[in-house]
Amino acid sequence: MPYPCRAIVTSAPSSDGQPSFVLENLSLRDLRDDECLIEVVATGLCHTDIAIAARPNGVFPRVLGHEGSGYIRKIGAKVGANTVPPTAPLREGDPVLLSVAFCGRCTSCQSGHPAYCVSSFELCFNDCGPAYTRGTEFAEGDGGPVAGGFFGQSSLGNLAVVKENCIVNMSGVVKDREELKLFAPLGCGFQTGAATVSILAQAKPSDSVAIIGLGGVGLASIMAAKIIGCKQIIAIDRVEEKLRRAKELGATVLINNEKYPAGLSEAVRTATNGAGSSITIDTTGALPVIQQALDMTSVLGKMVLLGMSGASIQVDITKFKMTGKTLLGSVQGDAVASVYVPRMIQWYREGLFPIDRLIKFYRAEDVNLALEEMKVGKTVKPVILWEKNQNVKTGELPVEMEVYLG
Amino acid sequence: MPYPCRAIVTSAPSSDGQPSFVLENLSLRDLRDDECLIEVVATGLCHTDIAIAARPNGVFPRVLGHEGSGYIRKIGAKVGANTVPPTAPLREGDPVLLSVAFCGRCTSCQSGHPAYCVSSFELCFNDCGPAYTRGTEFAEGDGGPVAGGFFGQSSLGNLAVVKENCIVNMSGVVKDREELKLFAPLGCGFQTGAATVSILAQAKPSDSVAIIGLGGVGLASIMAAKIIGCKQIIAIDRVEEKLRRAKELGATVLINNEKYPAGLSEAVRTATNGAGSSITIDTTGALPVIQQALDMTSVLGKMVLLGMSGASIQVDITKFKMTGKTLLGSVQGDAVASVYVPRMIQWYREGLFPIDRLIKFYRAEDVNLALEEMKVGKTVKPVILWEKNQNVKTGELPVEMEVYLG
Repeated sequence: MPYPCRAIVTSAPSSDGQPSFVLENLSLRDLRDDECLIEVVATGLCHTDIAIAARPNGVFPRVLGHEGSGYIRKIGAKVGANTVPPTAPLREGDPVLLSVAFCGRCTSCQSGHPAYCVSSFELCFNDCGPAYTRGTEFAEGDGGPVAGGFFGQSSLGNLAVVKENCIVNMSGVVKDREELKLFAPLGCGFQTGAATVSILAQAKPSDSVAIIGLGGVGLASIMAAKIIGCKQIIAIDRVEEKLRRAKELGATVLINNEKYPAGLSEAVRTATNGAGSSITIDTTGALPVIQQALDMTSVLGKMVLLGMSGASIQVDITKFKMTGKTLLGSVQGDAVASVYVPRMIQWYREGLFPIDRLIKFYRAEDVNLALEEMKVGKTVKPVILWEKNQNVKTGELPVEMEVYLG
Repeated sequence: MPYPCRAIVTSAPSSDGQPSFVLENLSLRDLRDDECLIEVVATGLCHTDIAIAARPNGVFPRVLGHEGSGYIRKIGAKVGANTVPPTAPLREGDPVLLSVAFCGRCTSCQSGHPAYCVSSFELCFNDCGPAYTRGTEFAEGDGGPVAGGFFGQSSLGNLAVVKENCIVNMSGVVKDREELKLFAPLGCGFQTGAATVSILAQAKPSDSVAIIGLGGVGLASIMAAKIIGCKQIIAIDRVEEKLRRAKELGATVLINNEKYPAGLSEAVRTATNGAGSSITIDTTGALPVIQQALDMTSVLGKMVLLGMSGASIQVDITKFKMTGKTLLGSVQGDAVASVYVPRMIQWYREGLFPIDRLIKFYRAEDVNLALEEMKVGKTVKPVILWEKNQNVKTGELPVEMEVYLG
């Protein structure tokens, strides 16, 4: 049985690389055995959505979105058989956050590292067939298919069919619909930034942590470093406004790398009495910056590759070896969402993880405004809000939907 | 007061790159405040000695050697003030092993990682002035200086002035002079191989460990992996004889990489049911092998750069990040010699670390035979033995020396 829904459809980018995001009415296919039907309350927007939307050879048209929150409205026949790591059993009506898909069966998943699931790329990015149809009884259009399954959720719609392993049960943790709106982005960007510091890099109070790039991920790293009490928190960006925000959140050293075009590494060495940063996190994926980031990492320090990049870095074997550095790559900071999301919420409640200062809410109709404001830095984390039942073209719910969306 | 001694002097290599090792009678300078005078009993030879001897622009002439054992014969005025990490206090007559120099003051040393001492390169390799003189009352020659201080010890002589931080007190551990001969190489090559597995890479029984290059270091890695009980121990070399030896010591999979010129990585994947090695250790420093080694490392696996190389490896940022690998560099496997050497000796006594199978003893006069036999694989670890009092040209000891060498 198809469901009427309203979702933001991404088509192929224009010839000059501009991505396209358009709100449409669609029909959503029925859920599969390993999925839940989620009434989406809010969806965070992330640079990954934009990067994917700008790829000329991507899967289009498709519904993106991978930072969703909402309520379970229907549960697939085999849900529960395959949930690793353990989360509370899923029940209809439970509030949930949506995180990254994982298979639950590979050695990474089974050993408690679902972020590095061997099928994660496939589960997050591959075309897994049409999920929506244009031009049905609920929707205008030519009858053509629209792909879903992005990150196992495609949560940029008011209704989504979501792989069970994406779902973090927030029952007993999240109080109400308002909190679901605020916490929607916790399952990806904020988690990635914070867990890279606290879990993957195992930061301690003795560490000097340098964070390059101060978007939502980088700022979450700053907040986590502050919670841990790191000796120095070095924030690096080329936008003064972002540096200012980092300072408010706990950064102790601000470096505008436009002012050190030839020597970011030198600037960090100066700030650390010559030692270098004991933990360096690159969120930019910009190769020249990353090369410098490896240089500026201290003896016995950790360098974390977090930003996406198509390039390769050069590692001088002898230098790397003699200095005892560790090179790591962060996917979700190696966090297990069912464990880490509640921890971030606890920090938020204690005033230690003030994501409310970074979030701005937008109506789904205003998605392009949201993207523009994120681009120019007017907001760090735009969150799209979905109104109840706004999906139905006619304004009348099919009887079946009342059960789920009522 | 200079001491008569006999040592192997390395001169600049020939124009075709052949190193030169010649046994000579020399005068050794008196010890400095932070040094001990050591009567050397035995000295292991290592590929690092050969590599340094083959560099056209090295410090020449110089006495090399960095795997010494012997007895303390005189103690510098300030010895004991600066010994980090703790070893038993040094007394005249104590049997000792010599390991790698470290400063004892930097953050690496102070935090328990002396292998990554920020001054280690300087302390091990730099020219720290003449230590020997040719053509004195004890020695033939033109009166010219010969450099010492290699790895803080220059132990390829029967007498050496050694930085206190190189000295591991074996009092109460080593039984007699015969054991000092056997254990001489423990402080560098064997320690590096074993500790890379057990300390740096933190190998566990669930690991599949791949070790590339089966010299003394690689074989020590094999033995350590066996002690830990690693699930698979994959030995890789292009010399069948070395593979055979690895099997005797515990390797469970043998791969001759000459037989897989295009696909060492594929061979390891096949041996591990497609997963790859969870710990990969390269002891060769050969770039094409290292690139494959990184490839064949499993998701969440650790790749350890151990072999020396002047090259850089390329790390594909996205691939590295998505697979959650860790890149590490090994110096002495991050071991603290005063702790790790006794551990290896204990393993030896329990029959778990049979270094006696890998060692062959040579007279100092036969140093070139020893190097040749190491090169062609007739021995894994040649050890030079020093006879008592053999240093004096005339056969008569100066009275002062009897005190120290008697």
